[in-house]
Amino acid sequence: MKHTLTTILLVLSFLLTGCGASLRGVGDMGLVIERASGSIKVVETTNKTILGSVKGLGDLSHASAVYSRDGRYAYLFGRDGGLSKIDILTSTLVKRVIQGGNSIGGAISQDGRLVAVSNYSPGGVRVFDATTLELVADIPAVGEDGELSKVVGLVDVPGQKFVFSLFDAGEIWIADMSNVAAPKITKFKEIGEKPYDGLVTPDGRFYIAGLFGEDGLALLDLWNTEKGVKKILTNYGKGEKKLPVYKMPHLEGWAIAGGMAFLPAVGRHEILVVDTNTWEEKGRIPVHSQPVFAMGRPDGRQVWVNFAFPKNDTLQIIDVQTLQVVKTLKPGNGVMHMEFTPRGEHVWVSVRDLDRVEVYNTDSFERLSALTVEKPSGIFFTSRAHKIGL
Amino acid sequence: MKHTLTTILLVLSFLLTGCGASLRGVGDMGLVIERASGSIKVVETTNKTILGSVKGLGDLSHASAVYSRDGRYAYLFGRDGGLSKIDILTSTLVKRVIQGGNSIGGAISQDGRLVAVSNYSPGGVRVFDATTLELVADIPAVGEDGELSKVVGLVDVPGQKFVFSLFDAGEIWIADMSNVAAPKITKFKEIGEKPYDGLVTPDGRFYIAGLFGEDGLALLDLWNTEKGVKKILTNYGKGEKKLPVYKMPHLEGWAIAGGMAFLPAVGRHEILVVDTNTWEEKGRIPVHSQPVFAMGRPDGRQVWVNFAFPKNDTLQIIDVQTLQVVKTLKPGNGVMHMEFTPRGEHVWVSVRDLDRVEVYNTDSFERLSALTVEKPSGIFFTSRAHKIGL
Repeated sequence: MKHTLTTILLVLSFLLTGCGASLRGVGDMGLVIERASGSIKVVETTNKTILGSVKGLGDLSHASAVYSRDGRYAYLFGRDGGLSKIDILTSTLVKRVIQGGNSIGGAISQDGRLVAVSNYSPGGVRVFDATTLELVADIPAVGEDGELSKVVGLVDVPGQKFVFSLFDAGEIWIADMSNVAAPKITKFKEIGEKPYDGLVTPDGRFYIAGLFGEDGLALLDLWNTEKGVKKILTNYGKGEKKLPVYKMPHLEGWAIAGGMAFLPAVGRHEILVVDTNTWEEKGRIPVHSQPVFAMGRPDGRQVWVNFAFPKNDTLQIIDVQTLQVVKTLKPGNGVMHMEFTPRGEHVWVSVRDLDRVEVYNTDSFERLSALTVEKPSGIFFTSRAHKIGL
Repeated sequence: MKHTLTTILLVLSFLLTGCGASLRGVGDMGLVIERASGSIKVVETTNKTILGSVKGLGDLSHASAVYSRDGRYAYLFGRDGGLSKIDILTSTLVKRVIQGGNSIGGAISQDGRLVAVSNYSPGGVRVFDATTLELVADIPAVGEDGELSKVVGLVDVPGQKFVFSLFDAGEIWIADMSNVAAPKITKFKEIGEKPYDGLVTPDGRFYIAGLFGEDGLALLDLWNTEKGVKKILTNYGKGEKKLPVYKMPHLEGWAIAGGMAFLPAVGRHEILVVDTNTWEEKGRIPVHSQPVFAMGRPDGRQVWVNFAFPKNDTLQIIDVQTLQVVKTLKPGNGVMHMEFTPRGEHVWVSVRDLDRVEVYNTDSFERLSALTVEKPSGIFFTSRAHKIGL
């Protein structure tokens, strides 16, 4: 009996310790994708530590994540079509489904009840219940040409809607999910050749698709959809000798700051500056190499830029007021992604080839910390739960 | 022995139940101030329920709150100078100090380590360690006139700084807290008569103080402080017959949306529309009565306005694109405050005289839910943890 008692006390203490460790706010937490090993590290930004690890998440060579509205659950979209729901408070995999053949991104609805995944194969969008991961809607992306199209640039926007682009068909669709049983689809056709990615401005108003098959980008004003899709920056790239493109830049990385958008130019060693009132080009900023992400510090004062292989050892920081590069950092080969703490005092940087995530002070550019993470790529903090289009 | 075992099992089950209840994400949580009873209700917005209650918080007749960077702890600033730290995961009061004679607001530093409180008496700002609530810096507000001044409009801005206004002295100060032991104060003198409140734009760039003693407002560009404070909207109110002011509007309630700021006009039945590029008046929108808060839906498409006594039973919704009032709601007497869910699908409204917090869908304006809360006033969701200046 004494033995039983001891056992019970041990179990009790173990359970309470576990419980105590998990009882914490999720507001300063996040995850880092370990692209080579199909795992993630759960991190926190207050003391800059690793809290846990979750394995068995499939092919994460091109993965992204969104968060539940309470910030507790991350939904991870893998290259292999895997959709994983992770509890970051306990570092456990809650559920994993293979939802498609080749997924490249996802989004969570405004109310947090639906998770949407865009697929290359079969081309379309699948919508899942955020709690159970049960399929609740399937939207095959059959374009005007009658063929299934790859889907890219999927984002959530206000009004319980998702917006996405059909790569092969050259269309932009809005799916209103207010009634899950009967999604209402609005289609915009002939929006341009081969939209390869899309983004929505932080207010959820302007959806922009980058075009691979022609110059310029496609712009849709979601407050005035009756006006249709408009082509912008049509002179961008025109008549110029194109450079080889080592890596397509991510549009999600557009920085919107001070009435300007900062766009990584495809194939060029430049950041394009666009006036967000007129959507006309306002200038170009020469940078180190081909930019991949151009991300705005939360206060909009700086834009941080990383670069494509083989010059991916560098970060450059642009001052938004002067439009000048004010700092160049060389963290090491394979600078894959940056994520700012929610109020912008620090930035976390994945340095793949050093198996390291580095943390910098964004004012002094001092390196504050380095965490060991296996081949880190995307970094996603829980503050994304509260953002439109992320 | 059997009895002991039963007791242990009961304790175990009790503890684990308590533990399980607390293990949750804080991202969808918040608090509602019960102004008459010195208590708060802890709430969550996913299922729209009350999770707990915390009492013994002193005079909350004019209280506000900020959150720790992990979203777990709320810091409550009471009229009686009380500073309370509340654990919203467990609904417990962690610590409470009476830090001054009459506090009217507070802020948390960019890095989350410092909580600052502004006081009428003794006039100044006191800065506390966010973990322990120990006093770490005291900044008496002695103006150019050599007297202690009431402090108003305290906000946090990037670079570990606080900005605030001296009511009696007519000054704006910036306190750089990078070195807590030696705060660096920058003073702007003769900024205008009797600044009564202040705000900072969501990007943390422009600090604006409302002036009670003269027409217009004082604007400080924190990116270019060498240019000093500039007077804006100097024609606002000038030469017009002033209406009696039933309640000073809150500047914190300014909505910034679509390159415009929406400002509740002091004493007038109007919302002023200001161009945020030029800071010149762009128009006025006639409304129901004297506005108190004008709050922008997170996507910037709508501005919700409540009103001063005796017409405080009403809410009006302005469409930002057309600058028209598109909806008038009558929740009941004492509509004190509104708070949007982080991505804007719902708004929570305090209806004091009905002892009720109501939840509305912001698209359909349908009332979704009503919670019983005793004399509710301010509503503060944890998403504020990630915002600059809130």
